[in-house]
Amino acid sequence: MKKFVIVGLGLIGGSMALALRGFEDHTIVGVDVSQPTLRFARERGVCDRVTEDAGEAIEGADVVMLAIHPQGILDFLKAYRDRFKPGCLVTDVCGVKSAIMEGAECLPEGVDFIGGHPMAGTEFSGIQHAFAEMFQGSHLILTPRETSTQAHIALMERLAAHIGCRDVVKTTPAEHDAILAYTSQMMHIIAVSVCDDENLFTCKGFEGSSFRGCTRVAALDVGLWTQLFSLNAPALTACLDTLIGHLQNYRKVIASGDREALAEKLTFSSGRKRQMDLPGPDLLH
Amino acid sequence: MKKFVIVGLGLIGGSMALALRGFEDHTIVGVDVSQPTLRFARERGVCDRVTEDAGEAIEGADVVMLAIHPQGILDFLKAYRDRFKPGCLVTDVCGVKSAIMEGAECLPEGVDFIGGHPMAGTEFSGIQHAFAEMFQGSHLILTPRETSTQAHIALMERLAAHIGCRDVVKTTPAEHDAILAYTSQMMHIIAVSVCDDENLFTCKGFEGSSFRGCTRVAALDVGLWTQLFSLNAPALTACLDTLIGHLQNYRKVIASGDREALAEKLTFSSGRKRQMDLPGPDLLH
Repeated sequence: MKKFVIVGLGLIGGSMALALRGFEDHTIVGVDVSQPTLRFARERGVCDRVTEDAGEAIEGADVVMLAIHPQGILDFLKAYRDRFKPGCLVTDVCGVKSAIMEGAECLPEGVDFIGGHPMAGTEFSGIQHAFAEMFQGSHLILTPRETSTQAHIALMERLAAHIGCRDVVKTTPAEHDAILAYTSQMMHIIAVSVCDDENLFTCKGFEGSSFRGCTRVAALDVGLWTQLFSLNAPALTACLDTLIGHLQNYRKVIASGDREALAEKLTFSSGRKRQMDLPGPDLLH
Repeated sequence: MKKFVIVGLGLIGGSMALALRGFEDHTIVGVDVSQPTLRFARERGVCDRVTEDAGEAIEGADVVMLAIHPQGILDFLKAYRDRFKPGCLVTDVCGVKSAIMEGAECLPEGVDFIGGHPMAGTEFSGIQHAFAEMFQGSHLILTPRETSTQAHIALMERLAAHIGCRDVVKTTPAEHDAILAYTSQMMHIIAVSVCDDENLFTCKGFEGSSFRGCTRVAALDVGLWTQLFSLNAPALTACLDTLIGHLQNYRKVIASGDREALAEKLTFSSGRKRQMDLPGPDLLH
C-alpha cells in the first residue's frame, strides 16, 4: 500500500479524502489540528486513518497534499521540509500559485512539488460541508515544476480522473494567478460589493436567480480570502480597474438615453458571452 | 369555460401557457405574430388554441396576460384598449412596472389591470426554450391598482400557486422598479461588463462556478434588456454608482496591503450576506 497524506481536513481536504476513496493502492491519512474535525473525520470514516501528528503522517508518505490556507502551506513547507521521504510528491489545492511555488523551493532535492488547484468549492467551509462529488465536472489546474517527473504528473492526472474532474489544465504560476484574479477573485469582490449596498435587506423577496448567482459566494471564508486577495494584489487590482471602466461605460450610455448605442454595446458583450459558450453553473444547491 | 389569453408565446409566455395547464376552468389561448412560434405551439400543444389574431382572441376574454416586451405592451394597450370586455383582468409579466402601470391608464373603466412580474427566467429566449417548471419556487410580484378588485387579486394568487410560485409579493410600481434595478438589472450590467474584459476567452478552462454564476445572464436578449434598462435609467444608474463606489473601496484596501483592514471589510460584507440568508440559486442547468 502507498501512503497518501492530506494535511487539512476542511471543505476541500475533507472532500478530497472522500473523493479519493479507492484511488489505486493508497491508504488515505488525514491530518488536522482541530480535535472536532478529527473526531468528525474518524466517526464518519472520511479517511482510512486520521492523526494530529503531521510529522509522523508524512514520514514515508508517497504523496502529501496540503489542503490548508496559503500562508499555512508556506509555513508548513518550511517547518517540515526535511521530513518528506526522497521521491515524495508534494502538492496543494490553493488558489494562488506563484507564492506557493516560490515557497516550495525550500524543499530538498528529490522531493517534487506540483502546484494544484481544483476549480471547485462552495461558499461554506469545514469538514461538515465536505462531499465526495465536490470535484465532479470541474477543472484541475496543475503548475508542475520544470523538473517534475512524468510519473508524478501522470499520477495527478489519474487522481483528477478518479475524483471526477472534467479535465486537467497545465499552466504557469503567473498565468494561473492572472486568470484566477479575473475568473475567481474578482467574482468574490463583486459579490461582497453588491452586498454592501444599503438596499440589500429590502430586496428580499424580489431577488431572482441572477442575484442569487452573483452574490452566492459573498458569504466567504474571511481568513482564506484575505490571504488570497493579498497574495495576488497586483493582478486583482488591475482586473478591478478594468471592470470599473466597463461598468462606467455602460452607466454612461444608459444615462445618455441613446437606445441604439446601448443596444449596440449589449450586442457586443452578449455576443462575447455566446462565443465563450460556457456551460451553465454546476451548482449543487 | 373561461377564456385566458396569453399575448406573446416567447420564453415566458410559452412557459406560462405550459404552467397554466389545468388551471381551474380556463381555456388557454395563445397569441403570437410569428408563424414559426405559432406552429411550434400548435404542434407541441403548448396552449388549447393559438391564433395570430389578437383582436379576436381578447374578445370575450376573462383574463389577458401580456407576455411581450415592455414597449410592445404599451403599444398593445393603446391599440386594443376598446376590445377588452367589461370586467376583464389584464396583466403582464415584464420587469418594469411604473411605465406599464402608467400606460395601462388608457384602459376604459371596468377593465382592471394588475401589473405582474414573475421573478423567473433563463438567459435564453423563444418558445423552444419554454418549460412548465419555469416558475417553481420563484416569487410573483404584483402591482395592483388601488381600484383592482379582490376577486382579481385572488385570481392572481391562485394562478401563482398553480404555476408553482413560492409566494406573491405586492408592492408599488416605484418600489418594484427601484429594487429591480438593484437585484436584476444591475446583475445583467455586471455580467456583460465582466464579459467585456479582454481576458474572457483566455480564461476558458479556468472558470469556476462563481464565474459561471456571475456571467450566466450575459447572453441576454438585447432588444428586451435595452428597453428594460432605458425605461428604468435613473434607478439603474444610481445603483451602478453605488456599486462602483463599493468596488473602489475594496480596490483601495487591497492595494494598500493592509490585511487587517481587508479582513475587517470582508467580515462586514460576508456578514451581511449571511444575515440575508438567501437560498442558493435555483438554476436549472
